[in-house]
Amino acid sequence: MRVVVPFDAATPKTRLDDVLSVPERHAFSRAMLVDVVDAVAAAGGEPSVVATAPLSDPDPADPVDVDAPVTVDDRPLTACVNAQIEAGVPVAVVMADLGLVTPAAVRRLLSAPGDLAIVPGRGGGTNAFSTSHPAFRVDYHDGSYLDHLRRARSIGASVSEVDSARLSTDVDERADLVEVLLRGEGRAAAWLRDRFELAVEGGRLGVRRRDAD
Amino acid sequence: MRVVVPFDAATPKTRLDDVLSVPERHAFSRAMLVDVVDAVAAAGGEPSVVATAPLSDPDPADPVDVDAPVTVDDRPLTACVNAQIEAGVPVAVVMADLGLVTPAAVRRLLSAPGDLAIVPGRGGGTNAFSTSHPAFRVDYHDGSYLDHLRRARSIGASVSEVDSARLSTDVDERADLVEVLLRGEGRAAAWLRDRFELAVEGGRLGVRRRDAD
Repeated sequence: MRVVVPFDAATPKTRLDDVLSVPERHAFSRAMLVDVVDAVAAAGGEPSVVATAPLSDPDPADPVDVDAPVTVDDRPLTACVNAQIEAGVPVAVVMADLGLVTPAAVRRLLSAPGDLAIVPGRGGGTNAFSTSHPAFRVDYHDGSYLDHLRRARSIGASVSEVDSARLSTDVDERADLVEVLLRGEGRAAAWLRDRFELAVEGGRLGVRRRDAD
Repeated sequence: MRVVVPFDAATPKTRLDDVLSVPERHAFSRAMLVDVVDAVAAAGGEPSVVATAPLSDPDPADPVDVDAPVTVDDRPLTACVNAQIEAGVPVAVVMADLGLVTPAAVRRLLSAPGDLAIVPGRGGGTNAFSTSHPAFRVDYHDGSYLDHLRRARSIGASVSEVDSARLSTDVDERADLVEVLLRGEGRAAAWLRDRFELAVEGGRLGVRRRDAD
């Protein structure tokens, strides 16, 4: 199946600005993108990236290649994804910031039954979906998951929810980095573990930067 | 399979004290307990509850029966669960505060391969596991998930992770209530929806109490 991965190449992961510098946010988000693209390919999907801007050259000290075609579409996410659905179904759309992604989790999305298979994000967003229904359209915003269910019902599309913690965890803020350190298996987790470690903060797990050598 | 559900009957859900009154915390936690017990039974497990204190009588206005044997064990959770493993394997242990639980999610836990099947909680806890290995023992604390993996390795037990957002979401604090309102399917969700609704707060979904009539 064609699997589109939208990527904010211009201003990635702004809600991590209390933890990561701007170059770090670029590097970390690119590592997550590569993890998602690689997991999609390993799951038997055909990944392509739709980026808001051309991808910057990778860090020469730590080059990370994106092994998928990249096109630039600077429209808002909703318009961009709807254009991809209009280009033909079946199609899946998987967000680029799923730092816990694995091929097995993507395989469950790609093999899920229904005209729409959908993965809610924590907080009510839509982290991933696949659809074979040409009339399905997205509208990304807070709580878009419920609206996407309504949209599916309104066009008579059958729906299945993919119950995956790995796909439901989008990495937006500091607390999400704990999950990547705990359970991430890809390049993003390796990148993060080089720089951060788990630490108990106020009785709960948090992250702290490793001491400089 | 025997499935033990530990339940804090004495001081449930203290971290929800900024949202729910003490009687409400008792009622809500009991509704989650019933959802877990019912999902275990529907998934083909044999549920039993181990409570820190006798269950209080249900609210006569909204009686919720716990359809499983209840025993009282006032030891700390770790000692209590290890005693259950020592009583015989295979056994599964599922926390009582999984407000998104469904029979399908529990079925995945009960049918997972490996000497230990484990569901990490968000934040690194251990929300559920099943084991057939008599030497496995638990030690509940922050980040217990990683220690449980180490313990399994040390005794040569094979491990599978159950990748379920529904089982990974334990309901501890205000933000978790958003997930219950969004996706809960049981009594706890119904209880909560009677009293609270979703609301956009600072650009994200939160919960607010419904206006009194």
